[in-house]
Amino acid sequence: MSRDRYVLAEEDLLPLSLGAAVLGTGGGGNPHVGMLRARELFRKGARVEVLPLEAIADNDHIGSVGGIGAPVVSVEKIKQGQECLRALRAVEEAARVKVSALISAEIGGSNSIEPILAAAYAGLPVVDGDGMGRAFPELQMSTFFIYGMDPSPGAIADDKGNVVVFKTVIDMYWLERFARHVAVDMGAAAGFATAPMQGAYVKKVAVPGTLSQALGVGRTILEARAKRRNVVESILARTGASLAFTGKVADVRRELRGGFAMGEARLLGLGEYAGSEARIAIQNENLVLLVDGHPRVTVPDLIMNLELDTGEPITTEVLRYGQQLATIALPAHDLMKTPEALKVVGPKAFGYPDIEFVPLQSSLPPSRKRAGHA
Amino acid sequence: MSRDRYVLAEEDLLPLSLGAAVLGTGGGGNPHVGMLRARELFRKGARVEVLPLEAIADNDHIGSVGGIGAPVVSVEKIKQGQECLRALRAVEEAARVKVSALISAEIGGSNSIEPILAAAYAGLPVVDGDGMGRAFPELQMSTFFIYGMDPSPGAIADDKGNVVVFKTVIDMYWLERFARHVAVDMGAAAGFATAPMQGAYVKKVAVPGTLSQALGVGRTILEARAKRRNVVESILARTGASLAFTGKVADVRRELRGGFAMGEARLLGLGEYAGSEARIAIQNENLVLLVDGHPRVTVPDLIMNLELDTGEPITTEVLRYGQQLATIALPAHDLMKTPEALKVVGPKAFGYPDIEFVPLQSSLPPSRKRAGHA
Repeated sequence: MSRDRYVLAEEDLLPLSLGAAVLGTGGGGNPHVGMLRARELFRKGARVEVLPLEAIADNDHIGSVGGIGAPVVSVEKIKQGQECLRALRAVEEAARVKVSALISAEIGGSNSIEPILAAAYAGLPVVDGDGMGRAFPELQMSTFFIYGMDPSPGAIADDKGNVVVFKTVIDMYWLERFARHVAVDMGAAAGFATAPMQGAYVKKVAVPGTLSQALGVGRTILEARAKRRNVVESILARTGASLAFTGKVADVRRELRGGFAMGEARLLGLGEYAGSEARIAIQNENLVLLVDGHPRVTVPDLIMNLELDTGEPITTEVLRYGQQLATIALPAHDLMKTPEALKVVGPKAFGYPDIEFVPLQSSLPPSRKRAGHA
Repeated sequence: MSRDRYVLAEEDLLPLSLGAAVLGTGGGGNPHVGMLRARELFRKGARVEVLPLEAIADNDHIGSVGGIGAPVVSVEKIKQGQECLRALRAVEEAARVKVSALISAEIGGSNSIEPILAAAYAGLPVVDGDGMGRAFPELQMSTFFIYGMDPSPGAIADDKGNVVVFKTVIDMYWLERFARHVAVDMGAAAGFATAPMQGAYVKKVAVPGTLSQALGVGRTILEARAKRRNVVESILARTGASLAFTGKVADVRRELRGGFAMGEARLLGLGEYAGSEARIAIQNENLVLLVDGHPRVTVPDLIMNLELDTGEPITTEVLRYGQQLATIALPAHDLMKTPEALKVVGPKAFGYPDIEFVPLQSSLPPSRKRAGHA
């Protein structure tokens, strides 16, 4: 992770969105539209500084914003752009504080960019970190909530001008339930803001350096492409991810249910995996990878599909028959693997009572692991 | 209508809830539990004054509260009691005003009592009037919204402590949609408060005297029972309602869909209606009465089922095979029959494109009509 402040450049936005799509583990929404909008703002002079966790003061108020809805919808329904900003203003008013920086709750997918967009509009910096180190389908699945952030106030805003405030909710599951259903009413694409957090708390529970990590992954992809290197191998070398499967998509089952993209993909092995079959269970994100019926990688560890030839991250909404994929896996951050965290983001929390979480090991040598990912 | 202020007595609560059940036109929720709770508060010394519309000052802020959910649920899920009060406090905070009196949005059913309960807790008076003169299934179907009340802020509260504020909504249909879905999340039984209204506006658009009207209908029923008079005939004589059908329930179709009790009842004629068949279309309330296939009474006019022998109001959730009913009808207030109002509460608004609203005439002689209903 980077320990320095830096200002995001226009040229950072493409690699950031590409890396965020990889860390989205199949979900998190497509960052492309948000990226284009942020680029517009940067070209008009917006300036967003990235702060390492260490730069936050204990008494700062840190806001967290993001899109809420179904990724499959976000491809077609373009946001107005200021949804997250309006939600942020509503929680600031409800909590009677002004925030001094924004942090992403989920670095994976479009929610890597949404805080940058809101920060550009509001003239705020963003924090180098997030609440997941990946993407997850529900609000409560962030370290922010897992380790005790107030579930209220929260706020949701749509493209039409509607703003709903979750003034008092008794726990994060109620917040998720209310917000999800209002988001569906709002067309399954809305901006969300959660309760402002104390700086001291964010420093303790945020997954550090993930904005820089996404940027690094994206740069690796672009650089490998430019130099005609194998993109998948470059990512593996760069991130400490391991290759979990290579195969051809034989079958995709997918439906939109209560604002979620639910489904399963089946892959027939290629190369060293020829003769094997993989199944990937999906709930917006890739949740469980089964190879020949046995769990190989499970949440909260990261399961990411890349196009075998190009290294292009393949999100669950664009998975389709015939694609040749490398399925790569990366260990989740330790904050996502404590007993408290596994209750919320482990396989059982997602409805797989028979699957135990067995932590994946990084394939990076210890010396590189200490240095971090980015 | 009464033009005097008066203080509600404990003995008023039973007739009020009985009359409100009649004016509920089959819906509006069962007022019994709210009535018992109000009686408890009255016995402990709570004092609620009833103000005629004339007693409101133009600059007063008037609050409106009520239950929101499905009547069929409210029979089984007992409220905590202060849901409406918590919703009221949230809209007062959001609108930055304190209300000086409460008014019911719907005098029919449990929402006749909910404002009295909240008023007893808050030490406020209630207004003799409401926004419908009956019950209707959706929020926007009140004169308050029809004639231009701000759709936000609104607030909803449940029995567990959750409070959601509709801070900015672009119109009353969005408010209804959001509120309905959050109410379903809350177990289809929650307390709701709408934006505080100016006194001058309430005086112009409220259906006047309906609290006293409900009280009068209830007293008529109890008096007729005590004196062993025919209750149905006593109500007809008292209210100006006309007898639209008498029959035996042959069939009831009813389902809970999106927080609504939807369905249809079929009645086979008795007495002067022997050989005829009636159908009553239901969406929480009785919406359309068809006799032998022809519309006989439609919304917004009132269609009310009373048990033939006892005069007991039969709400749609307790309709069942074999009941012998008198179906009586009462003209809606003129405020509910303007072109603007019919767009929201006429037959077409409820999904009956082929049914025209033909206003029912009161069966009261002109001299009694002038004197009013209560």
